[in-house]
Amino acid sequence: MAGSIFGTIFRVSTWGESHGAGLGAVIDGCPAGLPLSQEDIQSWLDRRKPGQSKFTTSRQEGDEVEILSGVFEGKTTGTPIALEVRNKDQRSKDYSAIMNLYRPGHADYTFDQKYGFRDYRGGGRSSGRETVGRVAAGAVAAKILKELGVEVRAFTRSIGPVEISPENFDWDERGNNKLYMPDAQAAKAAQAYLEKLMGECDSAGGVIECRIEGLPAGVGEPVFDKLDANLAKAVLSIGAVKGFEIGEGFKAPLLTGSTDNDEFASETDESGARKIYKKTNHAGGVLGGISDGSPVVFRAAFKPTASIAREQHTVTREGEETPIVIKGRHDPVIVPRAVVVVEAMAALTVCDLLLGSMTSRMDRIREFFRR
Amino acid sequence: MAGSIFGTIFRVSTWGESHGAGLGAVIDGCPAGLPLSQEDIQSWLDRRKPGQSKFTTSRQEGDEVEILSGVFEGKTTGTPIALEVRNKDQRSKDYSAIMNLYRPGHADYTFDQKYGFRDYRGGGRSSGRETVGRVAAGAVAAKILKELGVEVRAFTRSIGPVEISPENFDWDERGNNKLYMPDAQAAKAAQAYLEKLMGECDSAGGVIECRIEGLPAGVGEPVFDKLDANLAKAVLSIGAVKGFEIGEGFKAPLLTGSTDNDEFASETDESGARKIYKKTNHAGGVLGGISDGSPVVFRAAFKPTASIAREQHTVTREGEETPIVIKGRHDPVIVPRAVVVVEAMAALTVCDLLLGSMTSRMDRIREFFRR
Amino acid sequence: MAGSIFGTIFRVSTWGESHGAGLGAVIDGCPAGLPLSQEDIQSWLDRRKPGQSKFTTSRQEGDEVEILSGVFEGKTTGTPIALEVRNKDQRSKDYSAIMNLYRPGHADYTFDQKYGFRDYRGGGRSSGRETVGRVAAGAVAAKILKELGVEVRAFTRSIGPVEISPENFDWDERGNNKLYMPDAQAAKAAQAYLEKLMGECDSAGGVIECRIEGLPAGVGEPVFDKLDANLAKAVLSIGAVKGFEIGEGFKAPLLTGSTDNDEFASETDESGARKIYKKTNHAGGVLGGISDGSPVVFRAAFKPTASIAREQHTVTREGEETPIVIKGRHDPVIVPRAVVVVEAMAALTVCDLLLGSMTSRMDRIREFFRR
Amino acid sequence: MAGSIFGTIFRVSTWGESHGAGLGAVIDGCPAGLPLSQEDIQSWLDRRKPGQSKFTTSRQEGDEVEILSGVFEGKTTGTPIALEVRNKDQRSKDYSAIMNLYRPGHADYTFDQKYGFRDYRGGGRSSGRETVGRVAAGAVAAKILKELGVEVRAFTRSIGPVEISPENFDWDERGNNKLYMPDAQAAKAAQAYLEKLMGECDSAGGVIECRIEGLPAGVGEPVFDKLDANLAKAVLSIGAVKGFEIGEGFKAPLLTGSTDNDEFASETDESGARKIYKKTNHAGGVLGGISDGSPVVFRAAFKPTASIAREQHTVTREGEETPIVIKGRHDPVIVPRAVVVVEAMAALTVCDLLLGSMTSRMDRIREFFRR
Repeated sequence: MAGSIFGTIFRVSTWGESHGAGLGAVIDGCPAGLPLSQEDIQSWLDRRKPGQSKFTTSRQEGDEVEILSGVFEGKTTGTPIALEVRNKDQRSKDYSAIMNLYRPGHADYTFDQKYGFRDYRGGGRSSGRETVGRVAAGAVAAKILKELGVEVRAFTRSIGPVEISPENFDWDERGNNKLYMPDAQAAKAAQAYLEKLMGECDSAGGVIECRIEGLPAGVGEPVFDKLDANLAKAVLSIGAVKGFEIGEGFKAPLLTGSTDNDEFASETDESGARKIYKKTNHAGGVLGGISDGSPVVFRAAFKPTASIAREQHTVTREGEETPIVIKGRHDPVIVPRAVVVVEAMAALTVCDLLLGSMTSRMDRIREFFRR
Repeated sequence: MAGSIFGTIFRVSTWGESHGAGLGAVIDGCPAGLPLSQEDIQSWLDRRKPGQSKFTTSRQEGDEVEILSGVFEGKTTGTPIALEVRNKDQRSKDYSAIMNLYRPGHADYTFDQKYGFRDYRGGGRSSGRETVGRVAAGAVAAKILKELGVEVRAFTRSIGPVEISPENFDWDERGNNKLYMPDAQAAKAAQAYLEKLMGECDSAGGVIECRIEGLPAGVGEPVFDKLDANLAKAVLSIGAVKGFEIGEGFKAPLLTGSTDNDEFASETDESGARKIYKKTNHAGGVLGGISDGSPVVFRAAFKPTASIAREQHTVTREGEETPIVIKGRHDPVIVPRAVVVVEAMAALTVCDLLLGSMTSRMDRIREFFRR
Repeated sequence: MAGSIFGTIFRVSTWGESHGAGLGAVIDGCPAGLPLSQEDIQSWLDRRKPGQSKFTTSRQEGDEVEILSGVFEGKTTGTPIALEVRNKDQRSKDYSAIMNLYRPGHADYTFDQKYGFRDYRGGGRSSGRETVGRVAAGAVAAKILKELGVEVRAFTRSIGPVEISPENFDWDERGNNKLYMPDAQAAKAAQAYLEKLMGECDSAGGVIECRIEGLPAGVGEPVFDKLDANLAKAVLSIGAVKGFEIGEGFKAPLLTGSTDNDEFASETDESGARKIYKKTNHAGGVLGGISDGSPVVFRAAFKPTASIAREQHTVTREGEETPIVIKGRHDPVIVPRAVVVVEAMAALTVCDLLLGSMTSRMDRIREFFRR
Repeated sequence: MAGSIFGTIFRVSTWGESHGAGLGAVIDGCPAGLPLSQEDIQSWLDRRKPGQSKFTTSRQEGDEVEILSGVFEGKTTGTPIALEVRNKDQRSKDYSAIMNLYRPGHADYTFDQKYGFRDYRGGGRSSGRETVGRVAAGAVAAKILKELGVEVRAFTRSIGPVEISPENFDWDERGNNKLYMPDAQAAKAAQAYLEKLMGECDSAGGVIECRIEGLPAGVGEPVFDKLDANLAKAVLSIGAVKGFEIGEGFKAPLLTGSTDNDEFASETDESGARKIYKKTNHAGGVLGGISDGSPVVFRAAFKPTASIAREQHTVTREGEETPIVIKGRHDPVIVPRAVVVVEAMAALTVCDLLLGSMTSRMDRIREFFRR
């Protein structure tokens, strides 16, 4: 059963392993006529690159993307866009220490159970490197969205117990610190927390928040393909994510109908038209699974990095109990590098549903074909 | 774009509105030879029925299911199973008071934006009654799972601030109280909380937890169709759900690698074989999106019922501001009735991926066709 | 694996058996705001009804369709449209003579092999009655197409060796004879051929031709979802169809490049614009799998009715050889009744791809969302 | 809308243009543990290579395939298999003569209509080179089938009016002549026919027949995903195919029920078991869309090569009428090179449905999970 294809109209198929020849994505269903350059995608990949600070692994990934098809004279042609990143750092390493062991918190055991064997080099397909394909494709989706006035932006909301404070919130600060936190003070506290954990050979998790602005009302399908349902799937499909919430999320059960409902109001815009809006946004931008014109706001909970330098206990493939020590340098927290991955998955989801929303009304379809 | 179809191999298509002729589901891809009776499905539908206590709406729904196809001589035939529930309580009511207003917390506004108009009778397709089709289909999926040793059970974990206590946990108690709480004491406290809210013309939300036991390791697809990703989508697609978490969920970011990782151990079973297991289950039964043999444990956060008797503010379709009072009796909390809906969606998800896992290994495929 | 769902954007799920409670279809993805009445669908079902002449079975099917959801105040709502036809003629018959035998030319043997047992009452899901769901859904697709200026019409091109003659072709004649032939003379000859076969307890096949007019250029997706590829699947999925061809079809290999290529020309229309057209239509309206603005013309070959009154040889489920005589009255030819089925499948295919074509160009997408 | 993805369980996504950087395919859903080497795929690609005789274009394509993912230690891992062929022959040519013209019989006009512009270098995505991805993926599907005892073989049945004769049929001869005809005499006559056409600056079409042997009964899904329906789509999706027929195909309408029905018989095999078979195979191996255990036999009609050296008439993008002469060397017939493409598409279709058939029966599912 195929698990590496995402979307219905704007469809992405990703491939590649941590230590194989490379990774990539094929986008099928991208509209023709979108200006697209290597740089549009590279800038997204650069944001997920490791080696940018002491809190990310020092592996040099390079990660130069090549556009192999679907773009002609600087514009998409409507046919599949193949994106590829060759793995550079593939020297043959010695995996004998772990190839026969199941690392706690990793997918080694489940891959073996599912497939009968596994690519033990750096996690193979279950490695975080798998997200290269997502990010490359997400960059294209985001570019379409931008042309239609929709912006997708995420940030690190918390690392371990250190959370940003709403009053300090500053989008511009996000790029100033390596943790992608829009709050300089919280970023500083989080760095101290991480340094302490590193000293203890331990690792941290965190929460990423994503905000989608400019999305018109009416996007998302009732029942199974709700906007929030598809976002939840997109986000939970990222390795290490253990939770998703939209709007008030897990705080909603602590509210009551009267404090959680968003009342409607209206105002007259410049053109004299009556514009309806919600006075609050507890809902996080969706009602009944359909965008309501407010910003879509959701959060993803990431577990701590599974690879820690500390000795742990596990078993061999044969079931023999044994200690395990995971060598090499690993990110003490993956959250900052995952911010762009969350944006990519959100962009893919919204782009697909936005295109899908074009066929929801006969009046607009009639008008479309009358051209 | 179609939004009412769920699953890849075991596929369900649901239909129906709150006040239309009826509701139903068509299951395509159900294996042949499964014993299936009307009662198998009715018993699930009865659990979502309203009118069972003062905490649920008094509308008498009847909800008798009819199996219209796909079952012959008491067994499924392998061809589509059509399940149907006719709406009985359809007398023509007076909707003039709300047909032109947007109820806060409901999908009235977004349906109008998406479709240009809407079925204003009781919410139409965005009504909670839409779950009739999910539950009917889920009952069939659950029956398949049961035959394969997999059990899906959910319960009310909290209502408002009242949460069950682990030390009181008792599956048997779940059926004893109308709130589906496996803790008699918490149920009592939750009832008091609900009565207070009802007195204030307000409503409550809550959290449902679901546990899936007996699922073999190896179910779920890497990357986009992870078991937890598909569960998240399934659960978020239920109206009023605002959050999903698996295992430690939103608590995972507060742990560290050393406290969140589940170590592996092994034991020798009766047959003398070495059996590998996880000593803890912070992961909630999935590693890398694939089931690991431990129970799958997830939670869903439900917002408070949007329909409250209290006066609220809103606008008309034309954007005129106006007060709104929602008449009729509504559940002050939908969580207890949603327990079976969560079970249904979990069963549909797991059944689909379990069947899908049959094609993951050549050795087993060869053996299958050698018969 | 699910086999009863068709389409990507405009999606149809059909269900029902020959002698079960009924048959139906659920359409998911139908745009909102399409005027739709029971009569729109009934008129299509009436055209596939048996009992209209001595060349069709005398079974009285009634086949009254009920719209159970998705239509409100005479217009589609955008949510699933459930269509249902209850079987009336279900008296319990005696199937003991054939329940254990494999009828030649029928799917009895293959259903048993696939599912381990089968619904032996009248063929169950493999019966021609299965097409009720297709036709009901196709009527809705055709109504959408009509609103967009696209017309789908089919006719009987030949029965056995009797073929219509191009010079006699007359659309109006199609409705005048029970064989749906647009050539009065050929219809007469075909009737004589059928009467002769009936006298010999034998049956006939034939060819249906379908023409789709008004389809704009640009519909169909390159590579796998070509317009002609999807039409071929749609048409071959009708029971008894053994061949599909578009344009010159199987005559194309007998032509050469210079006689098969359609040259382009242009003319100036009323508005003064230059309009490009093909001088000929050997291609049948598709180039590279995409509609070219010419009429789409395809043909389907139907095998002779498998049920014949003549004694045949077969085996029992246990493999014992035995003669078999199929009782009851059967259509000596199904082609005339299948004309509306071909139209339905063509309408479903074209409607799906036409809606899908709306997302092929960024310039049109930008304009759509600028509204 | 995505058109370059094929299959449900064994899913292939292809990409690439005639004169872009390369072409490829990503296979998602390939079972783990299949031995797979570059050579397994290369040998298939070599069969579609041009430049092997004077009847195929002299372009040197090289077409060396690289496996970029999904294979580890010589076996498939269960995760996506990326296959890639870089275009070698990409020197910048002068397309000014045709970039603004619509070549008759090609997709230039329809791509422009659909996408607003097109990659005019050698047809871009509508080029026959697109089949590189199909063939590479088909080689993998065929390898799975071979392990399960299923063999897919096609051959040139006719070129223009020259058809093979059943009495001369010889599989071994197929490889001896450049036309892939299993009849030496017919091959000779076909060569004479082609030489004559080449002298006249013209081109030929032909018919390919494919036979699938060893397929167990029970493969294919009733109603829309019939084995023959899916094969028809697969085959019609190949550029230049204008018709598909299975078994008697377009000859079936000329038979009668008594001459077209295949009677069942039985024999006792070595193990003493009763084996049921059809005495004839007019059906071509499918009954009700499900394989019946006989060889599956189908044919595809190919139109003559559209590119001919002779002067033709056409229009410019602006609609101005103009003569056109297509330069360069082109295959006077593409049929021989398309044989392997037909095999590839048949293998992909059958592999997908064969894997899908594993979930059709509860008894087998129970047994599978009891392991």
